[in-house]
Amino acid sequence: MSLVLYDYLPSGNGYKCRLVLKALGMPYELREMNIVAGASRTPEYLAMNPNGKIPLLVVPGRGPIAESHAIIAYLAEGSALIPADPYERALMWQWMCCEQYQLEPGVATVRFWLKSLKKSPADFGERYTERFQRGADALAVLERELKGRNWLVGDKVTLADIALFAYTHVADEAGYRFADYPAISAWIARLKALPWYAPINEP
Amino acid sequence: MSLVLYDYLPSGNGYKCRLVLKALGMPYELREMNIVAGASRTPEYLAMNPNGKIPLLVVPGRGPIAESHAIIAYLAEGSALIPADPYERALMWQWMCCEQYQLEPGVATVRFWLKSLKKSPADFGERYTERFQRGADALAVLERELKGRNWLVGDKVTLADIALFAYTHVADEAGYRFADYPAISAWIARLKALPWYAPINEP
Repeated sequence: MSLVLYDYLPSGNGYKCRLVLKALGMPYELREMNIVAGASRTPEYLAMNPNGKIPLLVVPGRGPIAESHAIIAYLAEGSALIPADPYERALMWQWMCCEQYQLEPGVATVRFWLKSLKKSPADFGERYTERFQRGADALAVLERELKGRNWLVGDKVTLADIALFAYTHVADEAGYRFADYPAISAWIARLKALPWYAPINEP
Repeated sequence: MSLVLYDYLPSGNGYKCRLVLKALGMPYELREMNIVAGASRTPEYLAMNPNGKIPLLVVPGRGPIAESHAIIAYLAEGSALIPADPYERALMWQWMCCEQYQLEPGVATVRFWLKSLKKSPADFGERYTERFQRGADALAVLERELKGRNWLVGDKVTLADIALFAYTHVADEAGYRFADYPAISAWIARLKALPWYAPINEP
């Protein structure tokens, strides 16, 4: 019995889990879910995850874990992707919380509306304006903090980099321009050069 | 030199930190910030926390930590508030991620609009409707999961309970009715009976 990941390939939240599994060389079984067609809203799926969202990791002999950051922290425990120093570990979680509260609700939501639902900004009115600005604010913090450093916490790649990379590297699909963010662009190139990097849509 | 917590007493996010500090009996210095009057937007504060938000914990000899869940995980490391079992620890983070993504943006935002800014639902139009519903969805998941159990993860109180209690126990200030949530109400009473419980506005 191996780990099972319920996922939707365009999802940045799912991509975080896939990247961590690849970085750690952990075998797993991927179950692709077409969330736009309602695959995560069936009674069978809701019994595993009442929130009706992907990604979901099922651990053999234990059960399901929802929420991308809970999943990647579980997978990476004891690995070099989590800093050994408690203060640096706190900064890693600070970035991951910031991603879920600011960057994801902005960048990921707008990208989902435009790319997966194939709608236009006008379909969402002031909700679009609010969400786009929220993403822009998060990208501005990220750009400033990445100036003059290679990775977000300490001098090695951590879960914080993977968690923020997932939606940031496809922010152009939400209408942001990479030309406005040189430090972010250099950091994206740095992560893409890592040996375990794989594109978001690759199973 | 002791830990310093920059905080705003009505904040549920700050309250999570104060409750954990009390539960663990850790001494700290409280610096109260009137965020409604702009105290967290001064150049001095933004130099410590570019996000301009409270709570912020300053660790002597190391530096600041932002984001309530990063702060409480740092404080509680190695304590009984974090499950020793890796799978239970993942479920603890699952709840905490869910709080930041669903419950807090709903319940806390509506409460802030009504109570701290003293506005009415009509001032926010469809943004109010969206946020209120988001909180209601999160409370529905919490109510269902609390049925028949004392605490969210395992059989002891953990950071997950503290993190979700913070805004849930004042959800009436955002217009939700506790009578609709009997399992949540019983869990709130259980947490309030713990020896380290203190009200949200108590410094």
